[in-house]
Amino acid sequence: MGQAAGGISPLAPKTTPSLSPVAGVKLATGAAGIRYQERTDVLLALFEPGTTVAGVTTRSKCPSAPVEWCREKLRRGKARALVVNSGNANAFTGKNGREQAKFTAKLAAKAAGCKPDEVFLASTGVIGEPLDASKFDGVLEAIAARAHAHAWLDAAKAIMTTDTFPKLAGATVKLGKAQVRINGFAKGAGMIAPDMATMLAFVFTDAAIVAPVLRDLLKSEVGDTFNAVTVDGDTSTSDTLLFFATGAAVKNGAPKITRANDPGLKAFRKALHTVLADLSEQIARDGEGARKLVRIHVKGATSKQSARRIALSIANSPLVKTAIAGEDANWGRVVMAVGKAGEPASRDKLAIWFGDIRVAANGERDPNYNEAKASAYMKNDVIDLTVDLKLGRGEDRVLTCDLTKEYVAINGDYRS
Amino acid sequence: MGQAAGGISPLAPKTTPSLSPVAGVKLATGAAGIRYQERTDVLLALFEPGTTVAGVTTRSKCPSAPVEWCREKLRRGKARALVVNSGNANAFTGKNGREQAKFTAKLAAKAAGCKPDEVFLASTGVIGEPLDASKFDGVLEAIAARAHAHAWLDAAKAIMTTDTFPKLAGATVKLGKAQVRINGFAKGAGMIAPDMATMLAFVFTDAAIVAPVLRDLLKSEVGDTFNAVTVDGDTSTSDTLLFFATGAAVKNGAPKITRANDPGLKAFRKALHTVLADLSEQIARDGEGARKLVRIHVKGATSKQSARRIALSIANSPLVKTAIAGEDANWGRVVMAVGKAGEPASRDKLAIWFGDIRVAANGERDPNYNEAKASAYMKNDVIDLTVDLKLGRGEDRVLTCDLTKEYVAINGDYRS
Repeated sequence: MGQAAGGISPLAPKTTPSLSPVAGVKLATGAAGIRYQERTDVLLALFEPGTTVAGVTTRSKCPSAPVEWCREKLRRGKARALVVNSGNANAFTGKNGREQAKFTAKLAAKAAGCKPDEVFLASTGVIGEPLDASKFDGVLEAIAARAHAHAWLDAAKAIMTTDTFPKLAGATVKLGKAQVRINGFAKGAGMIAPDMATMLAFVFTDAAIVAPVLRDLLKSEVGDTFNAVTVDGDTSTSDTLLFFATGAAVKNGAPKITRANDPGLKAFRKALHTVLADLSEQIARDGEGARKLVRIHVKGATSKQSARRIALSIANSPLVKTAIAGEDANWGRVVMAVGKAGEPASRDKLAIWFGDIRVAANGERDPNYNEAKASAYMKNDVIDLTVDLKLGRGEDRVLTCDLTKEYVAINGDYRS
Repeated sequence: MGQAAGGISPLAPKTTPSLSPVAGVKLATGAAGIRYQERTDVLLALFEPGTTVAGVTTRSKCPSAPVEWCREKLRRGKARALVVNSGNANAFTGKNGREQAKFTAKLAAKAAGCKPDEVFLASTGVIGEPLDASKFDGVLEAIAARAHAHAWLDAAKAIMTTDTFPKLAGATVKLGKAQVRINGFAKGAGMIAPDMATMLAFVFTDAAIVAPVLRDLLKSEVGDTFNAVTVDGDTSTSDTLLFFATGAAVKNGAPKITRANDPGLKAFRKALHTVLADLSEQIARDGEGARKLVRIHVKGATSKQSARRIALSIANSPLVKTAIAGEDANWGRVVMAVGKAGEPASRDKLAIWFGDIRVAANGERDPNYNEAKASAYMKNDVIDLTVDLKLGRGEDRVLTCDLTKEYVAINGDYRS
């Protein structure tokens, strides 16, 4: 990830949501001088006793120290605090990295009045630079004292690196007879690819849900949201999605959820999906240098998995992405990307649409193809690209963005 | 592929080789007006009776009509002519595309005085536009009349699209008691990725080698040459490598080779490897927008195949490629690319070098790391990047180039 080139993404949502509190969650931010002085670079979230947690982390074979820390602590499923810093990923930092993670958790535990095992960590920024956790000393305690229930926007801003806008989403949903709240925020703009398709995302609810059920909810909803977004096909060492449930809504009559198949969970699951989908779409909308959001829909594949692979082959093709940046309805490159995916495809059955315009059918250019019409469509901010393989019922969707000169500028000038 | 942005690649070889003839091969070029008027866009090669042929074609599931034509004719292994056109790939052109390929072969057969089954075809250019083969009518006969043994540079130029320089390589080698010749030329600058890692390459020898042995030679030498080059990870629908052996050297006492394990083939095989490696390196040196050649060497992997996958993950990572474009020794992104490859890797054993400078060891920054020294190294035209996984004896090398704003410009402005 590089530094923001200035200016908010033209694809940013028109408004930033103002989130209501989640009972049992308090937030605070501060400046620890991790990479730059006087810049907000640390977030502390404090949770009521009894909070459960589940998470999904990067599939990288070279995970960061905070990712390893979280994986271990997720087994217990109990959380009292979350510390996120930007500026340094504490990744590829060896034994020292593990010590710094441990020390950060110790400082946070002191500030939160809990055990280090109940502290969750996430870091984003440069890979390979040693992190000096002593910079958190004093800072975490100071900000803990002023943590409050309304700091959602500040929290989302504190974890940004190359992001050009803060990413927040929330929902209120009925659980049993009570209203519960789900809030989330995320960051990520480059080094974004499944799986996980985000740098960092944190979701919070006041519902009371045991950790195994939280895990099940995340597992079932992340596949078509965060794992269906790619900016550049590069997977971070630090990707972390954590989902915290404080249980505070029990005071308002919310039930305690202990089974994944609880019929009362249906609306909650749907609301969670909406929040995750909203956050992950915001990540694609803030892809480094992006000027167009691209929604890829593959149908008629032999399976959903095959459709996903073909969709990702299209989404990660530099030639498809640069054509879209150039507002060129170059469907020949879509054929190329389908062909290189290695999945079952029958050239002479293939059909392709840009928006509602069918550009190719039965393995050749659509007889009614109209270049002017297709080119006009490409001027839109949001491009819908549909491929029908006409082989089976496998179907899937992924989100991506175009590849512009700004992506190269942002990522070619970093660290120098 | 887009249009050349003007200017020869700074990585182009200092000199263009002047190739001696290959007995039994005559070449001619002409302008058929395929895409542009008055532009050389067709190459005709004529071979002596008795010429054998072997080939390797794209693994795309959506191959072009000429690729399908060649695959079928390669079974017979006999060649009298080769027609290559630039400007239109005749790919994704349906039944009409097959008819146009057939008609091209018919016209070439008439010009060469052979059967259509002995004509090989290759096309490069836009995908999805119908090719009008009637444009070859008259042109092929006219240029056949002036075909000669010395037109190697013209031939290499005729097949260029976004290439900024013609790509030629040759060798003279002893086979039995005679000297035989191997000449080759290639084109390709974008949509380059294994397998095949080229758009088009043609290699010719006057040695007498039966088709099955030619196939064996290609198969064993292509893996570490053309298949070890990637520009953008995008695989073309049209990739074709053809290897023709006229047998004319028999007149000079060369033996007829009928067995792949013929001990006399050792030097020939080595010379063929050199020619293929030279041509494939030239393709990486002419990668669209490239300013740096990147040689990636992965060792200590669990197998050669695993090393290849990790090397390709690094070579195709937009974040690694943009960092190199920015002359940034950002080895953290190399860690990222190793981690995302999905191959066995142990983070805390990993070591990374830029040139001779070890930047990381044992899973963290090298204790002697010197940013200024590493940054100075990145100013070179050729960047050597070595990763040691320290897990086994698997080792492999791939070639690529950096990712610059010019790549985006070249590919974002095509067709518009």
